Amino acid sequence: MNMSVLRMNALVAKSRAMERLKQTLNILSVRNHRQFNTIQQGSKYTLGFKQYVTLSNGEVASFFHDVPLALNESEKTVNMIVEVPRWTTGKFEISKELRFNPIIQDTKNGKLRFVNNIFPYHGYIHNYGAIPQTWEDPTVKHELGNDAVSLEGDNDPLDCCEIGSDVLEMGSIKKVKVLGSLALIDDGELDWKVIVINVNDPLSSKINDIGNVEKHFPGILDATREWFRKYKVPAGKPLNSFAFHEQYINSSSTIQIIKECHKSWRKLISGSLDDKYDKLPRIERSGNGIILEDSAKPPSQVPPEVQKWYYV
Amino acid sequence: MNMSVLRMNALVAKSRAMERLKQTLNILSVRNHRQFNTIQQGSKYTLGFKQYVTLSNGEVASFFHDVPLALNESEKTVNMIVEVPRWTTGKFEISKELRFNPIIQDTKNGKLRFVNNIFPYHGYIHNYGAIPQTWEDPTVKHELGNDAVSLEGDNDPLDCCEIGSDVLEMGSIKKVKVLGSLALIDDGELDWKVIVINVNDPLSSKINDIGNVEKHFPGILDATREWFRKYKVPAGKPLNSFAFHEQYINSSSTIQIIKECHKSWRKLISGSLDDKYDKLPRIERSGNGIILEDSAKPPSQVPPEVQKWYYV
Repeated sequence: MNMSVLRMNALVAKSRAMERLKQTLNILSVRNHRQFNTIQQGSKYTLGFKQYVTLSNGEVASFFHDVPLALNESEKTVNMIVEVPRWTTGKFEISKELRFNPIIQDTKNGKLRFVNNIFPYHGYIHNYGAIPQTWEDPTVKHELGNDAVSLEGDNDPLDCCEIGSDVLEMGSIKKVKVLGSLALIDDGELDWKVIVINVNDPLSSKINDIGNVEKHFPGILDATREWFRKYKVPAGKPLNSFAFHEQYINSSSTIQIIKECHKSWRKLISGSLDDKYDKLPRIERSGNGIILEDSAKPPSQVPPEVQKWYYV
Repeated sequence: MNMSVLRMNALVAKSRAMERLKQTLNILSVRNHRQFNTIQQGSKYTLGFKQYVTLSNGEVASFFHDVPLALNESEKTVNMIVEVPRWTTGKFEISKELRFNPIIQDTKNGKLRFVNNIFPYHGYIHNYGAIPQTWEDPTVKHELGNDAVSLEGDNDPLDCCEIGSDVLEMGSIKKVKVLGSLALIDDGELDWKVIVINVNDPLSSKINDIGNVEKHFPGILDATREWFRKYKVPAGKPLNSFAFHEQYINSSSTIQIIKECHKSWRKLISGSLDDKYDKLPRIERSGNGIILEDSAKPPSQVPPEVQKWYYV
């Protein structure tokens, strides 16, 4: 081995160490500014709409990577990022493709996506969102109990459905209690739906697991399953199915899933999967002091056809 | 009888004839300007909000008395005035107390009234409104079939529930097909709910009576009954009940009810009931050329507690 190769190796090692150090400093910086705010760009219901989370010092951060998971196993709580307030139809979600992962409205063939209203429901029946610092790994197959199926993850943060009685705002970060989950198979991909309740909901203290839900929210669990089964039918897709014989998983198994998805997320941000999948989410985080201007405009009109009610 | 009494009688008779003539001219004037528009005063979700119907010449008219019933018995159609668009919660209705009967938000103890959201529904599940030139007479008892009950009318125009898949705008006047009705007993008063469909709905031509509804809108009739049974429970009222063993009445019987309520309305506007009831609706109609300014303001915030979801 000649000298120049040795020198190069030393340089590479040094630059990796510098990267790790920089990342650690960044994370510490985020921890110092954990009072999150949001800024908005553009008009809701247009292609230009973006909502970013920001730190208390004003710099832009990532909903996906900078908002802490904040798992507390004894309280069964995690953070949730609200993407879609209950009773709305715009399919807003944390972007995988844009730097700092703002919330944007999903598109299909260049058109803004809305979910269809499925009788007797209106829009989403939950405050719907994501659990930060989790990721459903699309590069590995997940075994699904006795169903003898194994499926890739959907390349998104874990989805969650908040069942409390209030409507929560898009982009808000809520401490929620994990009650259970449903293993949706959506277009052939594994897509866990974690059932949670806002810890500030008046009924939260009475509900500690999936088995307590029906007593206080009679019908919500069946409605949730039917909603996810049918919600793509008006768009011409088949009924969705579920693993585990359509049964809900309890809270402790769900917390194990969250922990696995948090591990997958660590792998994602480590960069070690970079060669394994060509559509990995963007992983930039705060810590570079980047400030974005708020340029919110009033919301645009929702197209009237979005208001139709479908009997599926 | 002395001369002055005779003269007075003659004068009274003359003045009554003049009144009738004037009314006839007014009605003809309305018929000449039957392209209705609306104007708004104040901000929606405030006590000052009013929406008036106007004639094509700009003068203010009454939703209750000037918009024609337009009953077509062979087509089974009537006009409907939309008071509450589907999925909204503000209890807007044609005012009985204000001159020209604008649409206002109902109040209770001085506070704006909203309906509570009853799981799995959001707001009203129909485009809800009234049939113009009809009135449920509170001065007479109505026999209700074999149920051996007789109840007073609720002093309002007939209510109707439009089941088509579009959301209709507040204050819009729609030609709707009469499909049937449900005899709600609401707080002890008879309150017919007429089931209709917008003739412009794509399914309207396929549905001619209450018996066809389930095939095309599976679940809507049961949902309607449950909604009206439960909708006042969160406000501390008991479950509502229904006459006719909770069954829907078919379209031809419903059209008879509409005709009776149209007759009652004629009695109301004739003035002959003026001594019989102290809360009769205002009966002023257009024809005097009164113009009101549009002074619409942007809608106010809906109180957040209105967003709660109740499991009844």
